[in-house]
Amino acid sequence: MNVKLKLQYDGTNYHGWQIQSNGITVQETLMNAVESVTRERVNVIGCGRTDAGVHALNYVCNFHTDSSIPMERLPYALNSRLPEDIRVFHAETVDDGFHAGGSAVKKRYVYRILNRDFNDAFLCKYAWHYKFPLDIEAVRNAAAAFLGEHDFVGFASSGFTVKTTVRTIYSLDVTRSGDVMALDIVGNGFLYNMVRIIAGTLAYVGSGKIDWRDMENIINSKCRERAGITAPPQGLFLKEVYY
Amino acid sequence: MNVKLKLQYDGTNYHGWQIQSNGITVQETLMNAVESVTRERVNVIGCGRTDAGVHALNYVCNFHTDSSIPMERLPYALNSRLPEDIRVFHAETVDDGFHAGGSAVKKRYVYRILNRDFNDAFLCKYAWHYKFPLDIEAVRNAAAAFLGEHDFVGFASSGFTVKTTVRTIYSLDVTRSGDVMALDIVGNGFLYNMVRIIAGTLAYVGSGKIDWRDMENIINSKCRERAGITAPPQGLFLKEVYY
Repeated sequence: MNVKLKLQYDGTNYHGWQIQSNGITVQETLMNAVESVTRERVNVIGCGRTDAGVHALNYVCNFHTDSSIPMERLPYALNSRLPEDIRVFHAETVDDGFHAGGSAVKKRYVYRILNRDFNDAFLCKYAWHYKFPLDIEAVRNAAAAFLGEHDFVGFASSGFTVKTTVRTIYSLDVTRSGDVMALDIVGNGFLYNMVRIIAGTLAYVGSGKIDWRDMENIINSKCRERAGITAPPQGLFLKEVYY
Repeated sequence: MNVKLKLQYDGTNYHGWQIQSNGITVQETLMNAVESVTRERVNVIGCGRTDAGVHALNYVCNFHTDSSIPMERLPYALNSRLPEDIRVFHAETVDDGFHAGGSAVKKRYVYRILNRDFNDAFLCKYAWHYKFPLDIEAVRNAAAAFLGEHDFVGFASSGFTVKTTVRTIYSLDVTRSGDVMALDIVGNGFLYNMVRIIAGTLAYVGSGKIDWRDMENIINSKCRERAGITAPPQGLFLKEVYY
């Protein structure tokens, strides 16, 4: 059967989702737990890579198994074998054709910026500390330029291998609660580091280093150097995957 | 001069406030930063001990120095030398007689309980996961019994050395936001582990293991065994110290 899991993880102590040789990853940690429960070594297919330090509130993955463990027991069985910074909160059987990565049609990310003079002892692992005051209206005006279909090659770090760099952004909402500005972005897919580069660029807009009126030209220039910095990973949360 | 500092810290990675030989403490970490700034090895006096894993939102301490560093620069100078999970957000000069511990007249703590089936990958270090459903009205009724002056010797872990175990509780408010129940307690002082034992006892009341009508008798019994468990440290936050 094909099992779909939903989980959340604090990415602070992981080298991202995808298995690699030089660090502990969420995928490897989860595969070890699945193996312990099912007695099978199976590949757990993720909905996408997340970088080291990036968090997930609702990550989706799937795996094929011959085990007959009841779905209502599976989250408990996995959680008892997982470190506390990874929590499986849902399991269900799905059609054999379901692929957590390939079947996804939309994703929602949230990027959080702590915008004040001092960093915070608690938020430091869950937000980007950016001390220059941010003009939220300028950020919102710039955010509007990202909506719709664009070639976002200028908002990708090198090293990616994708067929096309054209993506569609459905929404990019900018809100502020106290000292925390949140960027909530929904798209049909995101290039390597794309959300973090958008966040870094919007922070530059908010602090006046980039004029929001130039945003459309910067996107159309397809030139990485014209965008802002790649914002650090700890502010990024994968919030939802849509199928 | 006598310098008063206000700071916050995430206690996860520390063996509490007070210097000890077998682990890194907040006091030692802060004293090293003060030494680096002032070029003097001074004792930093805390407003109280916090246990390993306990957090502080507004910890107060003081130290005497001959250094002439401007107060408005001191938080920046210290923060640049401190790990990111300790942040100094205020510094001022005070009367020579001020003692962060001895001068304190009231303290406010918050204890947070995540009350649901699953733990949370993010809250696990900042709340106690208690899965049995809590009856908030029963907890509130029991909380009322703590108000006023009592001998709280039954709500202290052994190993304390204090002149008296009589303390006054000014308020103990119980609120719930989503899955998180918060106990907000103000008193003129707290015995060793007192807030955590109150939290553990109130959780037992909320889940029906202790009848709230027995609370007054349990307090008056002065018997540690009649109270509930000592709730774990990660749910506890020192919120305010009053002088």
